[in-house]
Amino acid sequence: MIDKLVEKIRRTGAPIEVGLDPMLDYVPEFVKQKAYAEQGETLEGAAEAIWQFNKAIIDAVYDLIPAVKPQIAMYEQFGIPGIMAFKKTLDYCHEKDLIVIGDIKRGDIGSTSGAYATGHLGKAQVGSRSYYGFNEDFITINPYMGTDSVQPFIDVAVPEKKGMFILTKTSNPSSGEFQDRLIDGRPLYEWVAEKVVEWGSQHMGECGYSYVGAVVGATYPEMGKVLRGIMKKNFILVPGYGAQGAKGSDLVNYFNEDGLGAIVNSSRGIIAAYKQPKYEKFGPEGFADASRQAVLDMIEDIQVGAGLR
Amino acid sequence: MIDKLVEKIRRTGAPIEVGLDPMLDYVPEFVKQKAYAEQGETLEGAAEAIWQFNKAIIDAVYDLIPAVKPQIAMYEQFGIPGIMAFKKTLDYCHEKDLIVIGDIKRGDIGSTSGAYATGHLGKAQVGSRSYYGFNEDFITINPYMGTDSVQPFIDVAVPEKKGMFILTKTSNPSSGEFQDRLIDGRPLYEWVAEKVVEWGSQHMGECGYSYVGAVVGATYPEMGKVLRGIMKKNFILVPGYGAQGAKGSDLVNYFNEDGLGAIVNSSRGIIAAYKQPKYEKFGPEGFADASRQAVLDMIEDIQVGAGLR
Repeated sequence: MIDKLVEKIRRTGAPIEVGLDPMLDYVPEFVKQKAYAEQGETLEGAAEAIWQFNKAIIDAVYDLIPAVKPQIAMYEQFGIPGIMAFKKTLDYCHEKDLIVIGDIKRGDIGSTSGAYATGHLGKAQVGSRSYYGFNEDFITINPYMGTDSVQPFIDVAVPEKKGMFILTKTSNPSSGEFQDRLIDGRPLYEWVAEKVVEWGSQHMGECGYSYVGAVVGATYPEMGKVLRGIMKKNFILVPGYGAQGAKGSDLVNYFNEDGLGAIVNSSRGIIAAYKQPKYEKFGPEGFADASRQAVLDMIEDIQVGAGLR
Repeated sequence: MIDKLVEKIRRTGAPIEVGLDPMLDYVPEFVKQKAYAEQGETLEGAAEAIWQFNKAIIDAVYDLIPAVKPQIAMYEQFGIPGIMAFKKTLDYCHEKDLIVIGDIKRGDIGSTSGAYATGHLGKAQVGSRSYYGFNEDFITINPYMGTDSVQPFIDVAVPEKKGMFILTKTSNPSSGEFQDRLIDGRPLYEWVAEKVVEWGSQHMGECGYSYVGAVVGATYPEMGKVLRGIMKKNFILVPGYGAQGAKGSDLVNYFNEDGLGAIVNSSRGIIAAYKQPKYEKFGPEGFADASRQAVLDMIEDIQVGAGLR
């Protein structure tokens, strides 16, 4: 799957992923009203609204990008109907041949991480049969509990040829509170990065990159430079572009000389593009077309800003 | 809810919670066969089996204990049918007036933590109406991303009078890899504990304890002693008892002088008790009665071992 990711990035020229993180506030009124008319102002109605919103955006952008990153929290907030919309979104993205990165930030003691790995990357055994639960291609993992909380994900990912991104230096303002603290003269996030290299060496793709990558926020480009140097063969998933403040020229440090090694996420900046003055000509009815234009603009900004051409 | 927890611990004399973490391997063959006969060897069949298993155990132990802690990973592994069994379990525990601690270990950037908080502790607004998604009373939280990843949970928990436990020193063998590393001469878990005190001061119960507690593994009693000293007014959720190796006398450090301040989890040791030589007389058919006896034995072991009487 890391080989497929690299191949798709090369083909599209777009080292980006669209974050499918639908807040109800982003969904145009006419989409919500139609869903509520069918299902009522219920959790089912909310789930239908975000699914229809997602579907229109996926249809408008799938040919431009290699991957999407649905954030499961945005679905979990609507309970079971929300989780059903998450699964429907994953399945539809697979139909469109998009690589699906489940932003789930799980991590627990060994047997429990094993259960999460089964549900999100692998298959559950039921009697003589086995089934995928959610079936993402990559997921995100929280490393706070250490190696034995990460290894079960790798154990499931290897035979499935799937992967993961480990939180290393996150994009949020408080990320430094623990992650930047110095341990033997080096910040915690560097120690995590060293482990990412070690964990990732167990699961390498033919393209030379590991199936185990890291999450490093675009909002900290100097740290990104150091981390790029430590994790030479690990892909970096870069949140924080667009609505969180970073722009294309902040990203130059995150790529290797081969122009690969990073995939940049934008969520709100793409899926709620029609709400920005820049794209208001599309109007709420044209929200999906506005998202397509925002993807095209993001590709241009990153290719130029990060010096990829 | 922290006041209710304290009141229920006082009334039952049982500072314990049963971890409802059903692996299919724990479920007796006759329960599985009945579920598969009805629903097939499918994810729905697996979900039905773990639900029936849970229900029998809840019925057998609910009068002895204040709280249960379902581990969501064990349900998530079976996809949507599994999550439906999780919700059914939560609802049934509420019917039995048990306090429900959702072991979900979530945590993300602010808006995303807000969505998790909405789904698990609060209500989602849909048009003019609002609904609980999962409706746990407490949840567990991963602190790696810092204050702005925790605050949204507190913001939702305060008006709901609900709470949370922050991972501080976890029970697993690798927990020291990052958590024990020294920062300005003190291990990371102590810095997290200081933050737990700070975060918890925003949301105090009438009983004198905070709604914000910490997770500290029973497998590290010396560290438990230090952490008890730092977090005087925060409840400690203690995993690692029983199957993970700790016993009653390891727990003395986790309680305050008032005999409160800690709640000890046991999962496999209770729910799969019938598989232990000690309880084999109950047989697979008596699995729920074996669980009841194991709860009674655990209460005795903790009351004596931790010097609570």
